[in-house]
Amino acid sequence: MRAHIITIGDEILIGQIVDTNSAFIAKELDKVGIEVHQISSISDNKQHILQSLAEAQETSELVLITGGLGPTKDDVTKHTFCEYFQDTLVEDPAVLQNIERIFKHHVNRPMLPANRSQALVPSKATVLMNKNGTAPGMWMQSGKTVFVSMPGVPFEMKALMTDEVIPRVQQTFSRPFILHKTLQTYGRGESEIANTIEDWEDNLPSDIKLAYLPALGKVRLRLSTKGPDKAPLERRLEEQITSLKALIGDIIVGYDDDELIEKVVGSLLTNNNKTLAVAESCTGGQIAAAITAIPGASSYFKGGMVTYATHSKVELLKIDQAVIDEHSVVSAQVAEAMAAAVKNWYQSDYAISTTGNAGPSKGDSDAEVGTVFIGIATPTGVFSQEFKMGSQRERVISKSVNKAFELLQKEILKN
Amino acid sequence: MRAHIITIGDEILIGQIVDTNSAFIAKELDKVGIEVHQISSISDNKQHILQSLAEAQETSELVLITGGLGPTKDDVTKHTFCEYFQDTLVEDPAVLQNIERIFKHHVNRPMLPANRSQALVPSKATVLMNKNGTAPGMWMQSGKTVFVSMPGVPFEMKALMTDEVIPRVQQTFSRPFILHKTLQTYGRGESEIANTIEDWEDNLPSDIKLAYLPALGKVRLRLSTKGPDKAPLERRLEEQITSLKALIGDIIVGYDDDELIEKVVGSLLTNNNKTLAVAESCTGGQIAAAITAIPGASSYFKGGMVTYATHSKVELLKIDQAVIDEHSVVSAQVAEAMAAAVKNWYQSDYAISTTGNAGPSKGDSDAEVGTVFIGIATPTGVFSQEFKMGSQRERVISKSVNKAFELLQKEILKN
Repeated sequence: MRAHIITIGDEILIGQIVDTNSAFIAKELDKVGIEVHQISSISDNKQHILQSLAEAQETSELVLITGGLGPTKDDVTKHTFCEYFQDTLVEDPAVLQNIERIFKHHVNRPMLPANRSQALVPSKATVLMNKNGTAPGMWMQSGKTVFVSMPGVPFEMKALMTDEVIPRVQQTFSRPFILHKTLQTYGRGESEIANTIEDWEDNLPSDIKLAYLPALGKVRLRLSTKGPDKAPLERRLEEQITSLKALIGDIIVGYDDDELIEKVVGSLLTNNNKTLAVAESCTGGQIAAAITAIPGASSYFKGGMVTYATHSKVELLKIDQAVIDEHSVVSAQVAEAMAAAVKNWYQSDYAISTTGNAGPSKGDSDAEVGTVFIGIATPTGVFSQEFKMGSQRERVISKSVNKAFELLQKEILKN
Repeated sequence: MRAHIITIGDEILIGQIVDTNSAFIAKELDKVGIEVHQISSISDNKQHILQSLAEAQETSELVLITGGLGPTKDDVTKHTFCEYFQDTLVEDPAVLQNIERIFKHHVNRPMLPANRSQALVPSKATVLMNKNGTAPGMWMQSGKTVFVSMPGVPFEMKALMTDEVIPRVQQTFSRPFILHKTLQTYGRGESEIANTIEDWEDNLPSDIKLAYLPALGKVRLRLSTKGPDKAPLERRLEEQITSLKALIGDIIVGYDDDELIEKVVGSLLTNNNKTLAVAESCTGGQIAAAITAIPGASSYFKGGMVTYATHSKVELLKIDQAVIDEHSVVSAQVAEAMAAAVKNWYQSDYAISTTGNAGPSKGDSDAEVGTVFIGIATPTGVFSQEFKMGSQRERVISKSVNKAFELLQKEILKN
């Protein structure tokens, strides 16, 4: 069966916000075997919404809509729903109660008329209660197609999807299993991988699809298939992955789609009962931020220093000024001294350091924009490596973060 | 005139990646007065692509397509283009030269047949040279509609949009001015603002649109209008903004859409010739990362410490263990001691500190999940404030980061 996701909001069409809701909804649907046929972002305009609902109904059995349900005047979705379903708005007592509860416990001011009007829902709608906000979700049917409307605020929508929509969808529709396996690779490019695995790819069974998903410093390979039963699908994908491992096992760092390399590194440290500290210059705290974004990081992350100015490298990390003068602050020597110093400071088993120039202009050194040294300290020593990361600040930083984790992962695996 | 953006790729439809390309393209089109009618994300399937091209042609004079142009076998766009335009692929010598140049200077291995085949383009297409990658952009016309195809790799697409597509679009189409002004507000909710400005909003001229864009701890208000001449549009929006300032001037932090609060704070520090340091616990480096993501941060950012473990607060920041024992590590006293200590360490004028529990489980303290203390040290003193940030880790961290900048901004403005 197929689904169509419609996100409503002028702010998407003028590029003011990135539509992250669709990706979340698509992922949740995929998990329960529903294929997303299309995602459409459209304006707050009534005619456009009506037309999109009709088009979606033609191709899909499930239409999920977000946006246009807020308390303010730029929202039109609910009224348009009434027109599409030839329905009228009525006040729902349970929704009103929920709004009153939220105001009583979480809002420091009295309820306004705009808030009360959020209790109005189309009379034919099944209300999906929104515990985290005042706008309810709605579930309505037209012909064979179910339409679900949710607020656009991401965390409200996410809770509604997980708690209300997905369980109802599972009850309402029969679905095949959709199975994906993703391999995370670091260190080689898309066409280089494609060349290495060409024969294998040519011999893939026709019902197994392969996709390349390149990103900064990494390429994900996704294998997909679907069918009535899960077990044979899993077996068949596993066979293919075994063949792939024989070809590119050296660059695979994980098998889970969500397996970020910082998570892989975190698990390695936890399992080996080792700890980590970081000293960041050009990455400015992003390595520490990536580590601590993972729940449970406190068991292996001792802490970090963002020694952004040269001065702070000398004062705080006690890097010898003579070394900086001789080799420049962007150098292998300084990267290694930083890694060793921060490891010592925090008494950790491993340490990462970065020093480089992310641009756009040259900083405290004469190093070219994009030059980055990454230092790694291990229980047995310290080393560094130089990289040219291009000329765009954001990319230089992101690539350096990924590369640092890649280097560290290899070192932990050696020990 | 209207545009339709089509992003091609199964990875979007299964939620594996978030489609950020559309937002970038929409923003660039908006700047030159082109209204985006719809954004559609569709699969790599030939029939679906053909149908979407035809639908887009019906409503829009400009259709921008990304994705499906990579060197690997999961790409079908180029062949589908040929079918739609009844064309055939021919090798373009200039594109081939570009591919060879990229391989010679930037790739550490020989060119593969898959790379050479990227020089194949539909014979009727105008090639848009891609300096950053091997897949060229293409510009084709059918009836009154122009179709532009670009690779899906964001930084390649961005350069093509800026250097090739937008200048051609400006030459080809006559367009009105579209003018938006965005007000960034921090500290009050959407419906509260709506209530305060209700009378003003009711009296807005019909050709000026207002939208509320709420996010974590902030609400953006966007005013939009369009017309043949820029000057009168600007004057009319400025008049409205002046009225708004009288109503909610106290919560407005900036007027630029891109004006992140960390950027506002950075400008304030630069203009006042002051410096900043940060000591982060629960935010784990994200405040430092936000600061250093802004080019030029090195002129006011001295550095940071991520003292994640309690132990490191004692060892590195020299927080008195007795204070921690008496008040808990998540407390006003510790937040203030951290801010004062890191200010002293880095000899900065201002300092931010955070200590709290972002969840999901309790950490080194008994503080409830979501409890965060933010400390601010200024040239004249130090203070802290307690917040309850909810129970979702990611949100607790993001809200704390925004709130910290908000507190600091107010302090700098006082001095």
